[in-house]
Amino acid sequence: MRPQELRIVGIRGLPMVRPGDDLPRLLVEGMKKQGLAFHDGDVIVLSQKIVSKAQGRFFRLRDLLPSRRAVEIAKRTKKDPRFVQAVLNESSEVLRADGEALIVRTKNGITCLNAGLDRSNVEGQGTYSLLPFDPDAEALWIKKRIKLLTGRKVAVLICDTFSRPFRSGQVEFAIGLAGLNPIEDYRGKKDLFGHRLRFKFVSLADELACAAELVMGQGDEGIPAALIRGFNSKRLGSSNSKSLIVSRSIDLFRGTI
Amino acid sequence: MRPQELRIVGIRGLPMVRPGDDLPRLLVEGMKKQGLAFHDGDVIVLSQKIVSKAQGRFFRLRDLLPSRRAVEIAKRTKKDPRFVQAVLNESSEVLRADGEALIVRTKNGITCLNAGLDRSNVEGQGTYSLLPFDPDAEALWIKKRIKLLTGRKVAVLICDTFSRPFRSGQVEFAIGLAGLNPIEDYRGKKDLFGHRLRFKFVSLADELACAAELVMGQGDEGIPAALIRGFNSKRLGSSNSKSLIVSRSIDLFRGTI
Repeated sequence: MRPQELRIVGIRGLPMVRPGDDLPRLLVEGMKKQGLAFHDGDVIVLSQKIVSKAQGRFFRLRDLLPSRRAVEIAKRTKKDPRFVQAVLNESSEVLRADGEALIVRTKNGITCLNAGLDRSNVEGQGTYSLLPFDPDAEALWIKKRIKLLTGRKVAVLICDTFSRPFRSGQVEFAIGLAGLNPIEDYRGKKDLFGHRLRFKFVSLADELACAAELVMGQGDEGIPAALIRGFNSKRLGSSNSKSLIVSRSIDLFRGTI
Repeated sequence: MRPQELRIVGIRGLPMVRPGDDLPRLLVEGMKKQGLAFHDGDVIVLSQKIVSKAQGRFFRLRDLLPSRRAVEIAKRTKKDPRFVQAVLNESSEVLRADGEALIVRTKNGITCLNAGLDRSNVEGQGTYSLLPFDPDAEALWIKKRIKLLTGRKVAVLICDTFSRPFRSGQVEFAIGLAGLNPIEDYRGKKDLFGHRLRFKFVSLADELACAAELVMGQGDEGIPAALIRGFNSKRLGSSNSKSLIVSRSIDLFRGTI
């Protein structure tokens, strides 16, 4: 059963997040400033950047010593070898490294540019942020902490902006989650004319992440979180983001690009 | 400037759409049944299926005569050669054809399974729907017709559900649009600390499509359209879906899968 109506609200009242900050508390307080409070069944979407900031997931280029491999890849991709070393530290596999792109599979299984390292909205010269450490565990902790602070059962989704094959422009992917089923499986259900659907299973988590991005800020607008209200509670439940990853050997698109 | 709040409402009052139906009129009437009316700046998202139905974009397997190439691909993919012929008719290039998948680039540039042909929610044994003919032109016509019927300036987006590399589950892509800029380009803008953003350009059209899918139906629920209200009017404007397509030769992910 689909929801009648979704509301998506950007959470504007957050201060600059710093390492060690109690992010769930900042969210609750930020929402309060906007006249909002959590309801049971709300989905709260957080940009990777504030989660990484609260975790202190930064590095400075000057603290890295590049390996021979990093130096070699840096030459091919015209990047700083220390930056390449940081990317390699986060990666399980390098898929492309040449003039245009350094594309890897991260240790968490996400295929993306530069292992998600970037310096946008990060303070300090030569300072970059890493993706959060264990985003599923972090989402679960945030969910539990919101329950403790407010008594409300919410779902939590951590997202980041990624490029994709075939399509122009970036979209959001869910990189960590708690309290919702990331996939809705229609296979075996009947359509309008009683045919069984054979292929349809929808990535709700990535769709929620995209929906949230529409009210979140890139750049200097400072809207690093969104509240989604009205999402069907039957879609909630305990899960994690692992089911969103396709392993290379069974990827339908193998060899197409 | 990001919107404060988005509302996303599934449009439930549509009848079964048939070839030749005046889809914009059905939308206006369907919304009226729900107590809704179009506002300037609304984004109306339509599933490919109702647009194809209104255009009469169907074929029956028994009407197709497979070529030798279709027969050969059908053997490799264990599909009906007439179905394969229909896929080839819609495609500019076959990217993968083996036991697991028939992946093509359509004449409109979309990389997908089976050129978007399917029979879910289509009436009649052996009858399949094709993607709409010229979805951008169709979106523009729907936009103009809604203006004529209601006096309101809306944006129109036609979407379909597609599989993607690397990620599990399907999401919506915008395959045709009118009245909105599909991409928001942040490159050159400043972040919280005054750094210039170098890479960020977001596919708003695909994000809107994903947001709409959260209230639309796949199976037998019959919610083939959604209204998105609160989308920033600065993001509206005249455009089409061509800028959402990356040509193969410049695809950053070339060789990664």
